[in-house]
Amino acid sequence: MPGETERPSNTNDKLWSGGDALNKEVELFTAGDDYLTDGYLIEYDCIASIAHAKMLAHTGVLTKQECKRLVDELQTIRKRAAKGTFTITPEQEDGHTAIEQHLTRTLGDLGKKIHTGRSRNDQVLTALRLYYKTQLHRIESHIEELINSIRQFKKKFGGITFPGYTHTRKAMPSSFRIWAGMYMDALSDNKQLLKSVRRIIDQSPLGTGAGYGVPLNIDRSYSAKMLGFSKVQKNPMYAQHSRGKFESMLLHLLSQVMYDLNRCAADIIFFSLPELGYLELSAKITTGSSIMPHKKNPDVLELVRAKYHTVAALELQVRNTTANLISGYHRDIQETKGPVLKCFTITGASLKIMKPVFENLTVLPDACSAAMTDELFAVEEVYSLVARGVPFREAYRRVAQKYNK
Amino acid sequence: MPGETERPSNTNDKLWSGGDALNKEVELFTAGDDYLTDGYLIEYDCIASIAHAKMLAHTGVLTKQECKRLVDELQTIRKRAAKGTFTITPEQEDGHTAIEQHLTRTLGDLGKKIHTGRSRNDQVLTALRLYYKTQLHRIESHIEELINSIRQFKKKFGGITFPGYTHTRKAMPSSFRIWAGMYMDALSDNKQLLKSVRRIIDQSPLGTGAGYGVPLNIDRSYSAKMLGFSKVQKNPMYAQHSRGKFESMLLHLLSQVMYDLNRCAADIIFFSLPELGYLELSAKITTGSSIMPHKKNPDVLELVRAKYHTVAALELQVRNTTANLISGYHRDIQETKGPVLKCFTITGASLKIMKPVFENLTVLPDACSAAMTDELFAVEEVYSLVARGVPFREAYRRVAQKYNK
Amino acid sequence: MPGETERPSNTNDKLWSGGDALNKEVELFTAGDDYLTDGYLIEYDCIASIAHAKMLAHTGVLTKQECKRLVDELQTIRKRAAKGTFTITPEQEDGHTAIEQHLTRTLGDLGKKIHTGRSRNDQVLTALRLYYKTQLHRIESHIEELINSIRQFKKKFGGITFPGYTHTRKAMPSSFRIWAGMYMDALSDNKQLLKSVRRIIDQSPLGTGAGYGVPLNIDRSYSAKMLGFSKVQKNPMYAQHSRGKFESMLLHLLSQVMYDLNRCAADIIFFSLPELGYLELSAKITTGSSIMPHKKNPDVLELVRAKYHTVAALELQVRNTTANLISGYHRDIQETKGPVLKCFTITGASLKIMKPVFENLTVLPDACSAAMTDELFAVEEVYSLVARGVPFREAYRRVAQKYNK
Amino acid sequence: MPGETERPSNTNDKLWSGGDALNKEVELFTAGDDYLTDGYLIEYDCIASIAHAKMLAHTGVLTKQECKRLVDELQTIRKRAAKGTFTITPEQEDGHTAIEQHLTRTLGDLGKKIHTGRSRNDQVLTALRLYYKTQLHRIESHIEELINSIRQFKKKFGGITFPGYTHTRKAMPSSFRIWAGMYMDALSDNKQLLKSVRRIIDQSPLGTGAGYGVPLNIDRSYSAKMLGFSKVQKNPMYAQHSRGKFESMLLHLLSQVMYDLNRCAADIIFFSLPELGYLELSAKITTGSSIMPHKKNPDVLELVRAKYHTVAALELQVRNTTANLISGYHRDIQETKGPVLKCFTITGASLKIMKPVFENLTVLPDACSAAMTDELFAVEEVYSLVARGVPFREAYRRVAQKYNK
Repeated sequence: MPGETERPSNTNDKLWSGGDALNKEVELFTAGDDYLTDGYLIEYDCIASIAHAKMLAHTGVLTKQECKRLVDELQTIRKRAAKGTFTITPEQEDGHTAIEQHLTRTLGDLGKKIHTGRSRNDQVLTALRLYYKTQLHRIESHIEELINSIRQFKKKFGGITFPGYTHTRKAMPSSFRIWAGMYMDALSDNKQLLKSVRRIIDQSPLGTGAGYGVPLNIDRSYSAKMLGFSKVQKNPMYAQHSRGKFESMLLHLLSQVMYDLNRCAADIIFFSLPELGYLELSAKITTGSSIMPHKKNPDVLELVRAKYHTVAALELQVRNTTANLISGYHRDIQETKGPVLKCFTITGASLKIMKPVFENLTVLPDACSAAMTDELFAVEEVYSLVARGVPFREAYRRVAQKYNK
Repeated sequence: MPGETERPSNTNDKLWSGGDALNKEVELFTAGDDYLTDGYLIEYDCIASIAHAKMLAHTGVLTKQECKRLVDELQTIRKRAAKGTFTITPEQEDGHTAIEQHLTRTLGDLGKKIHTGRSRNDQVLTALRLYYKTQLHRIESHIEELINSIRQFKKKFGGITFPGYTHTRKAMPSSFRIWAGMYMDALSDNKQLLKSVRRIIDQSPLGTGAGYGVPLNIDRSYSAKMLGFSKVQKNPMYAQHSRGKFESMLLHLLSQVMYDLNRCAADIIFFSLPELGYLELSAKITTGSSIMPHKKNPDVLELVRAKYHTVAALELQVRNTTANLISGYHRDIQETKGPVLKCFTITGASLKIMKPVFENLTVLPDACSAAMTDELFAVEEVYSLVARGVPFREAYRRVAQKYNK
Repeated sequence: MPGETERPSNTNDKLWSGGDALNKEVELFTAGDDYLTDGYLIEYDCIASIAHAKMLAHTGVLTKQECKRLVDELQTIRKRAAKGTFTITPEQEDGHTAIEQHLTRTLGDLGKKIHTGRSRNDQVLTALRLYYKTQLHRIESHIEELINSIRQFKKKFGGITFPGYTHTRKAMPSSFRIWAGMYMDALSDNKQLLKSVRRIIDQSPLGTGAGYGVPLNIDRSYSAKMLGFSKVQKNPMYAQHSRGKFESMLLHLLSQVMYDLNRCAADIIFFSLPELGYLELSAKITTGSSIMPHKKNPDVLELVRAKYHTVAALELQVRNTTANLISGYHRDIQETKGPVLKCFTITGASLKIMKPVFENLTVLPDACSAAMTDELFAVEEVYSLVARGVPFREAYRRVAQKYNK
Repeated sequence: MPGETERPSNTNDKLWSGGDALNKEVELFTAGDDYLTDGYLIEYDCIASIAHAKMLAHTGVLTKQECKRLVDELQTIRKRAAKGTFTITPEQEDGHTAIEQHLTRTLGDLGKKIHTGRSRNDQVLTALRLYYKTQLHRIESHIEELINSIRQFKKKFGGITFPGYTHTRKAMPSSFRIWAGMYMDALSDNKQLLKSVRRIIDQSPLGTGAGYGVPLNIDRSYSAKMLGFSKVQKNPMYAQHSRGKFESMLLHLLSQVMYDLNRCAADIIFFSLPELGYLELSAKITTGSSIMPHKKNPDVLELVRAKYHTVAALELQVRNTTANLISGYHRDIQETKGPVLKCFTITGASLKIMKPVFENLTVLPDACSAAMTDELFAVEEVYSLVARGVPFREAYRRVAQKYNK
């Protein structure tokens, strides 16, 4: 029972194959590389399976003793996964299968019983959703820590004025207080969005089966509560439909974060241009060149800038993959698992790396003050002429003439 | 002072041009077609300008008398815009310029005073944000009305069972209660997202000038309160940065809505396929063919389905346009105005059109019940054998044999 | 018979409606705004219809006399369209309907005969493909003219050296000969791509009907030759499938062109930054600011830069709209007509506007030579030490120390 | 000298680091996972290095003896890479560094000499371009083989007629000859596009250094000829600029191929819907369900369908990553290497897997003929009435009435 669907292909397990040997090439093609990425999900699958086992005991499908043995074994897997000693083989295709095979090997038929009242579909949905919730907390912390780093930067350098640009041209006086504050505010708004997205996805899909419910008396509230979900996602077809939809919300959130980092990186690269010299990046976070001994390149910021586009593209992929399709599970959805995990990893790493960037970022006050040339004050000049009674048009004309000869 | 920026190009107003005649081709190229789309924005610009005028009176820049005359004239424009008798010429390039010229023509120098303590940038930002808030209320109502229409459909037909599909193949029993409920839940979650996005963008940018504040004593809370914003967007650079960022949030929300309609349209097209015949679309909402007299085509649903891709693509455009750029206004942003307005229009129209679709959608119970063939109950069969003591593997094998010979 | 499909909705023409009045809202929703954009296509539809009429005469379906009357009337429409006096009303929905109604009004039943052996689908396909071929020639000329303008610039300023940048940091000596040559080469490669795309799309779809051929003896080679197509697109299903596919090729080509202009615009904006001052844009192509009298903003280049993203997003939209759908015409395709026309317009205008940009672009030799600082020659220094027998590692270390103290 | 740029970060090689220890986190962040993907590129880097060494011998920089030793060692690496025994460690970061370190370890200072007159930038460009050319040949073969498989299918089943659909509704008679021919023609046009893209990218970038040439007398034609390039990419800045641009052309080509497979997969999934039953997929290429014993799911086709969206999204990512940036190398480009390799792998695998799909695809003639219901011939009926003298409007009305009661 590999992959992420109803379907079997494990050649060791001829039960599901209905007689015909699945074409070997087809088997390889459909396997994907979940076996590589699913390491992240083992823990969440164990947590979900434990809650499911307890629910089955609660409703009398499992005895207390059976439940205990399943839970103990799942805890063992979870610990081994945390230590990195629980491996998924390519033949197992994904972590869910690896867990199943482990349970069957160690517990015999009892190992199979964990699947009563559950399908592969809601099992995967639940593990992913628990993973998402944990990841959102991690991203939230990273956002907060980065805001703190920017705040430190603002404390040290906020008082220094430097030219504000429009159209990539000097425009009016600005300061590093305003500049740093901009990104703090943007990140705070992202936190608001994060909370909203979390509130929306915080629904338990466990018990929705393959999208049409389970012909068995189960207690969905019981397992939902145990897993910390704030509500049950009642409609089983919506549970399926929300795969892709919720992922799109999550990736949109992540790409909002990455968008802000992209713009921030662009700013630092530009303002630390030696010809301007308002900012300086310490050598600790720049990289040299194998051919040009004088170079100090902002590679780290260029990669942060680039990774926005990766997340934005994967966001698009995730949603478009299922557009135009009818309701119900389609195997197409397998293609979206990797991108979602990847975007969480990228965004977390990018938020984290911006901390040492801000800690190693210095404002050079002399260059800033030298750059505060007269034309930046043209607007103020016009207004001060106006204040002295000169009509606006005349004031503008006078100041314009001064700068455009 | 045309377009959406600091820049002038109006040839009747040589003041800003600094002497050199702007190349005619360049002028045409930069003008864009705001003069066509800005009809939507006149009203919001008038509202914002009235609040600004009152703030200026409040802080003593305008006399009460001056304020009254400006407000009266702005109310006149607003009424004419509502009636469609306030026109924007291509030369004026956009609605903001059209308003300015009107004020100057009717009020002389007083007309110019409205621009004290305000730049074109925060003027446009404010008008757009007011427009967005109104549009969000409109979209919210359309969502609610569509949910109601689906609820009516569910009341009438919810009790009818029909095959649930996975992999575009009959899988398990479903019902129109579950099917309709799925889209109601999806739309409800969109409403939650809408509220969150509204909460985030509900900040007054008025008074942030060209992104670096205004060298004048203004009362930003005063105008923000008058305009109904729940807070002031204090950081002027963030006000600029949020252009593009907030639009991306809005368009993501709209594309979430369109995604649900896309999938819903795909479902109706498929389930009303004559070969299945679970659903029937009334002739009122299908279209015939000029060449095939027998055709009843679901054009309206195909267009709804297609328009998701339009919104998704424009969402991407809006955000990518400003990625990689440094902070501060860039004229690039002008390219994003049309797409945002277009997406609101498309999403509103699509939500609205789905109402008559659901009102003209009938479930054909005979076809549904004829389609409830045995294999849909295979899962139940397996479970019932298990309940009678047959081990799961054996039960699965027996049922599988029955259907795969 | 409006829109771009088999379907009728014109309420004056009850023939096709099969009895039920199409819901008014549905009618409005499906109409789209082809009636606005199709002005461009009238000419090509007339040309295609003339060829079709002559083919029908050739195969004996029309008499010579009938053919002549139809051709004369189509020529009249074509001339009126060229003069802008042939209008399409919103009720007619698109240009094809407007032509049909005109022919029926002026020629009676003969006007209807033009549709023998042709469906709306291949009619639209043919008109669009003729339009594309003309547009490709236009784009090709614009590319050539821009290459010429860049060549002029290179002749004037190519000899001036200035710093080459990597990582947005001074790296090694460069020159405006190399810089200008880069964009000339990129545009030349685009020309190669253009020719290839033209060769691929140069197939006549006329006579493929609604995607399944025409139950009538027609001579497809005859009309294809008359229309200047290099071959007949024989497979009628492929004719339908290629709608969307060919458009994607065309838009990819256009976005390649826009990509080069985007990067070129970014370069000019950066190298004309006053702090660097390598390039200067004449006041004729910069725009001032209504609030900052000193500004000379490169708005035209910012818009060129932005419009790349518009074309790239529309390219994506066009192809994704029909992905995941089964073969055969779907109304979804209507949503792609506007974007394709828009991209041709944008790309043509952007190529054209870059000509005056290059004509008004000056290199400032003093700033360039002042910027040729020592570290640009670090690589040469290392190599010259190596040439004098110093091991590379040692040479690199010595030069590095010099620049990094 | 890791990554794909000028820059060093290998902590064992303090030479380039200029004194300051690069922040460990920054080092990890910038490393990327080229060390995992570059296995594919080792071979091409060896080939390019061999040509470079021979050119250096040709121009006298290396002695014949030195050249021979370098070439021998590079051949050794190449053979080991082919056997999978040449490994890249995470510390080496990429294959280029692994090769360098190997050469220095085995050949001492001579190993370093291979880098004379070459920078990391043109080294990577050359290896990639050789890889692309090989991949294009592989893709071309796969396309041809798939066309052959479809031709076999057409031979067997082409004569069977079945309903052609428009708007996902039965429309007119079609046949599997037309259906199969559509995809053969689409794939043939892709082959044309492939040849054109190959012609464009077939330019040698070797010798362009870091984008501004090499201050050394080198013979670029000599190495270009040895490597089989049809011409030299003379302009060094264009060599850099074409990174991203050429990749976009390649990925567009691949997404054109995937688009056709996407539509083809959608067709097979639909036409093999048991309710229609025109096509049947053998059990060898369908997958069962762990919970529903009766299911035969077309997972392989769903994945092919989904993978189009992966390629389309990565195409977008690749180009947008460098949009808006000035000329010259930026580290951002590193983010595009993985996606390009991934798209070649996906497209190759998808083309390959469609072969067994077509070999295991059967047409069910009974279902097809049963589906050829009267209304499919409505168009013919109308035309035959017309032929018997009934005016078209009257004929249409009569036939319409027959089908719409």
